[in-house]
Amino acid sequence: MKLYSYFRSSAAYRLRIALNLKAIEHQIQPVNLLKGEHKSDEYLALNPQGLVPALELDDGRVINQSTAMLEFLESQYSQHPLLPADSFEAAQVRAWVNIIACDIHPIDNLRVLKYLTGTLGASEDQKTAWYQHWITEGFKALEPQLQGPFCFGDAPTLADVYLVPQVYNALRFETDMSQFPKIMAIYQHCNQQAAFSDAKPESQADAPGR
Amino acid sequence: MKLYSYFRSSAAYRLRIALNLKAIEHQIQPVNLLKGEHKSDEYLALNPQGLVPALELDDGRVINQSTAMLEFLESQYSQHPLLPADSFEAAQVRAWVNIIACDIHPIDNLRVLKYLTGTLGASEDQKTAWYQHWITEGFKALEPQLQGPFCFGDAPTLADVYLVPQVYNALRFETDMSQFPKIMAIYQHCNQQAAFSDAKPESQADAPGR
Repeated sequence: MKLYSYFRSSAAYRLRIALNLKAIEHQIQPVNLLKGEHKSDEYLALNPQGLVPALELDDGRVINQSTAMLEFLESQYSQHPLLPADSFEAAQVRAWVNIIACDIHPIDNLRVLKYLTGTLGASEDQKTAWYQHWITEGFKALEPQLQGPFCFGDAPTLADVYLVPQVYNALRFETDMSQFPKIMAIYQHCNQQAAFSDAKPESQADAPGR
Repeated sequence: MKLYSYFRSSAAYRLRIALNLKAIEHQIQPVNLLKGEHKSDEYLALNPQGLVPALELDDGRVINQSTAMLEFLESQYSQHPLLPADSFEAAQVRAWVNIIACDIHPIDNLRVLKYLTGTLGASEDQKTAWYQHWITEGFKALEPQLQGPFCFGDAPTLADVYLVPQVYNALRFETDMSQFPKIMAIYQHCNQQAAFSDAKPESQADAPGR
């Protein structure tokens, strides 16, 4: 399969981790957002929203939206399960994941930040405060639920797949992470695994300076 | 099971529809957000984020986050499936649902609107324009994918469960829906079914004037 990716897209980063964890053979096709490649007719035919990532299956069919892609991979590739077999335990992981997927990530999305500074005339400082605020609110809800060494025990789950890109962004925007020691310990533990470190933005073929 | 609900919460509205569609026996326990009942110690023990809804199972275990609840119900109650049996088709429904669950709803959430008008000092007009902007952007992505008479054909799926509360909110905030004829036709078709109309905010025991 082929993942349409941008090195810094955290939704693409989730997919890169999951594909590595499940050892699913795949290619990564970079889409250069700065050059507007996501708005090309060719890309819009794959993803009408013009969003990265998109996942093209070997038969040419395409799945959009990272959560839908991850649920699809989980249902089709049983190796290294990313959700517990028990439905209630799976619901606990999904609830945790949704705090990142719904309550943090979309509110800090680039298009929202552009609306803030553009249409609403917010300053750079106000934008940064906004960014950090929603991460901090979300992480406050997540931190008490964590076990270790991974989010839900001894093996990575979807929770780690979502957490690592979100922490990466938090650090990039200089969020104070000192109040989240469990999150930071898990982040560092994950990044000792090749599945996670190979998926980092700076490890991608389209990262600057590579 | 017991659904902790607030009549106007659109995430609770999703659950009310799904429980009705699947004909799962349940009680609805109102949580009065205006009286701050969601911040009581009793409620925070159920949902540490203080968010509505929460789903309490018969054995007392609790699931939070509407998407996690709906996936749980789908996995445990096979009657009236809300996702297609085929994994790729299910991914198409989940991708569609995620445009509402991630790209519209969280950005228009009350706590975000409060940050806009409070911390950022946005006017009421700016708040309304923000609200309508994210609905309109999301609906533009959804409208072309719709079939009818329900979102994905002849029976309601998770897509309809998410769509109806989002349209309800759009109308409440006087969003121009004339550019979305397929969405409006599906909204009206859904509301002819008791599972949907019984779940409406104004049909709830905690709605004002009842």
